[in-house]
Amino acid sequence: MSHLGVNLALLLCSLQGAFALQVGGSRIFSRMPRACANGRCASVMTESTVTLGIVGGGTVGGGIVEILTGKADAVRKSLGKDIVISKICVSDTSKPRDFAVPSGCTLTTDVLSVVEDEEIDVVVEVMGGVNLAKEVIMAAIKAGKHVVTANKALIAQDLPEIEKLLDQVNSGRENKVQFGFEAAVCGGIPIIHALQRDFLGDEITQISGIINGCTNYILSNMASAGKTYAECLKEAGKLGYAEADPTLDVMGDDARSKLAIMMKLGFGIQVSEKEIPCRGITEITPTDFEYARLLGGTIKLLGVAKLDEPGRVSAFVAPVYVPDSSTLASIGGATNAVQISSQSLDSSVFVGQGAGRFPTANSCVSDILQVVQGASGKPFPKATEDLKFVNSYSASFYVRIRFRDSVGITEDVGKIFSEYGISIFSMLQNPIADRDDAQFVITTDPVDVTNVKQACAKLEAAEWCLGDIFYMPVL
Amino acid sequence: MSHLGVNLALLLCSLQGAFALQVGGSRIFSRMPRACANGRCASVMTESTVTLGIVGGGTVGGGIVEILTGKADAVRKSLGKDIVISKICVSDTSKPRDFAVPSGCTLTTDVLSVVEDEEIDVVVEVMGGVNLAKEVIMAAIKAGKHVVTANKALIAQDLPEIEKLLDQVNSGRENKVQFGFEAAVCGGIPIIHALQRDFLGDEITQISGIINGCTNYILSNMASAGKTYAECLKEAGKLGYAEADPTLDVMGDDARSKLAIMMKLGFGIQVSEKEIPCRGITEITPTDFEYARLLGGTIKLLGVAKLDEPGRVSAFVAPVYVPDSSTLASIGGATNAVQISSQSLDSSVFVGQGAGRFPTANSCVSDILQVVQGASGKPFPKATEDLKFVNSYSASFYVRIRFRDSVGITEDVGKIFSEYGISIFSMLQNPIADRDDAQFVITTDPVDVTNVKQACAKLEAAEWCLGDIFYMPVL
Repeated sequence: MSHLGVNLALLLCSLQGAFALQVGGSRIFSRMPRACANGRCASVMTESTVTLGIVGGGTVGGGIVEILTGKADAVRKSLGKDIVISKICVSDTSKPRDFAVPSGCTLTTDVLSVVEDEEIDVVVEVMGGVNLAKEVIMAAIKAGKHVVTANKALIAQDLPEIEKLLDQVNSGRENKVQFGFEAAVCGGIPIIHALQRDFLGDEITQISGIINGCTNYILSNMASAGKTYAECLKEAGKLGYAEADPTLDVMGDDARSKLAIMMKLGFGIQVSEKEIPCRGITEITPTDFEYARLLGGTIKLLGVAKLDEPGRVSAFVAPVYVPDSSTLASIGGATNAVQISSQSLDSSVFVGQGAGRFPTANSCVSDILQVVQGASGKPFPKATEDLKFVNSYSASFYVRIRFRDSVGITEDVGKIFSEYGISIFSMLQNPIADRDDAQFVITTDPVDVTNVKQACAKLEAAEWCLGDIFYMPVL
Repeated sequence: MSHLGVNLALLLCSLQGAFALQVGGSRIFSRMPRACANGRCASVMTESTVTLGIVGGGTVGGGIVEILTGKADAVRKSLGKDIVISKICVSDTSKPRDFAVPSGCTLTTDVLSVVEDEEIDVVVEVMGGVNLAKEVIMAAIKAGKHVVTANKALIAQDLPEIEKLLDQVNSGRENKVQFGFEAAVCGGIPIIHALQRDFLGDEITQISGIINGCTNYILSNMASAGKTYAECLKEAGKLGYAEADPTLDVMGDDARSKLAIMMKLGFGIQVSEKEIPCRGITEITPTDFEYARLLGGTIKLLGVAKLDEPGRVSAFVAPVYVPDSSTLASIGGATNAVQISSQSLDSSVFVGQGAGRFPTANSCVSDILQVVQGASGKPFPKATEDLKFVNSYSASFYVRIRFRDSVGITEDVGKIFSEYGISIFSMLQNPIADRDDAQFVITTDPVDVTNVKQACAKLEAAEWCLGDIFYMPVL
């Protein structure tokens, strides 16, 4: 491997003292030499060695080191190259590590010493966060270094900027700067690679994914054990599936970031994730699973993006009623799965581990080994198409209504639904146990979510209606 | 895109008259100019155009033309290149085609005119067969052309030779000849790409796949409708899932070819497919599905390869009892699925269409678009490891025994099983309907298949035993 050009400027500016890891710091850019910004910087590489600098020595970073150390002989045999990890940047070099630092590898707190090191060919960013991580990645790309990252939040937030920089740096460059981010979505499932390559000549019509392990664990547990959301969340926390603050998982934000990245790759459409309608799983009760079973299915938190009509894409993250006939219904525990519907391939499903040290590290390693082969392809190959994103979606809906028993409820519901153009597909009500607090469920024909929202708001004002009405789309 | 060097020799030898497509013919090699054999031939390519020659204008070839024609604008926008199909080689140019031949594209029967055409950058081989197809592929590689093929039989049979030639041709060549064969295994499932890349840094411990659509359709139908094998085979034929001669499908040979290719990619082990133990589905009866249901599972024809113990790989193609808890149990119809167990990723499953015009064509198109990006990576990246292949395997087994009722049968079975070291895990017998022809089922603890075979042979000699004993491994 060798980059074009010789970087003299780097020699002038490198290693001018320690540069501590600063979250949110912006000093890297101000210190990046101008000559690097033209993308012609080079590292002194040999044909047989690829040198890595890893920024982040935590769970994923440690996993990468372990895999690469264990696979060193196999990689040499397979690809004819030695992968040398020369530097690992951490926030505290004195902190004990749960992996063996390779001999000859330096632990440093100086992130600049990684990005500016002319011997380093590939910068692996596994520090997380969006501020310093972004500076590291942008500086590395400008310095002509290949980049591999596991940073979902950053990709979701700054994808256009990264893409633009890569285009600039790679314009006219024969040995393109490669950019791998397989680990950023669904840990161990190679869905990024599949979207980059296997669907590039196909026309994707829908992406539907169980793309958050914590919520899938909670919902699977609620389904099988009949427990409440709160109980299952607690168990998820004990097993390490839920963070101390699980908000980003249970409210759907994490899934939404992943969906936005998949939409860019699958539809070539750039959507700010905040525009995607998003609902979490906190309102789901054991009653919903009872009714879901009656209907022949279960409930999953899905990220869904679909070609609604030619030229129009809609998307949402929400709990979804999934019929048992769908492969997604059978995905239990913290497992992830992405189903892609497309013109040529009909339906394809990718099932695997969505998180964890080794699944995520393996995805980084896959990207590193592609870089070593010079075979990464374009990171965002699907050109932005003339697609319109609509901040709404239509679907059939499951609607659960709590009520105080009285005469005329069905009439009210029928009247208001018909006012909003909602056609009722089925109506289920278990025998009433408590006339002061009972529930029934309606499923609808396909209709716009806005109509459902408005009808529900109107129904909630009725005297017999208790609390908020719960609705979710049907897959 | 440009190859190194300029090929003068090609100019001298090309287009010396029509060369009819001859199955089994070997005239291509004798006419290939020596100068091409050093892999330094070149085609006159421009930066913005990639020229394709397609050998085969049937189902898959037509699908490729349709997809590439429909996606021409999108490809130009995405990758900045025009893909031009300049020639399609067919056996009869006067035969009507079910696709529109692109303007400027020549239909020819002269395969040499494709392989020798210096304007052609990529040869797409979708003619099938192993003789002429092999010559086409080898000649194209020697001529420095990239190759994309859908030819499973050829890859399974001649993989070492192809690999060797690629190594020779690419040695010292900067612009490597790329070789794509995603379409050769499981049509639309990108399992080849996943094995080439996403598991390259991982340690695969087992590959288990539903890798033949015809037999999965038959078995799924037997399971759900309670019909016989013969009835379901007939229906499969009517729906186009079974060939006029379905032998290669129902006897497992087709699955075995695919398994051998996946073993090369997943374990880096080259096994002649004929060495892999292989049994078909013709002996399976509705009774087996009855007992499978009792046991909480179903029956699937699987190709399985596993790291039996460190350094030892075993493999088989056989009907397998699959518990309902496995994702593979839920894969119905002609759908294919491959489950990969590995050290870092635990379990991953890839589900999709295993055959058909557009799934197979899409895989070829994916490979073509990788070639266009120069991003194919090594076709067989996993170096051959020091693994021993054993022509046997161990598993738990399902054993169904037909018998004429008499005293002492259980004693005989217990005695003979214990003689061969077979431990019984469960024994099921529905109430006897006919004392002269009844059946019972045993499941065993893990044991070598040889022991089961020997024990069955000995039991078959018993007076009360009717016909051959049916056994299959348990997943």
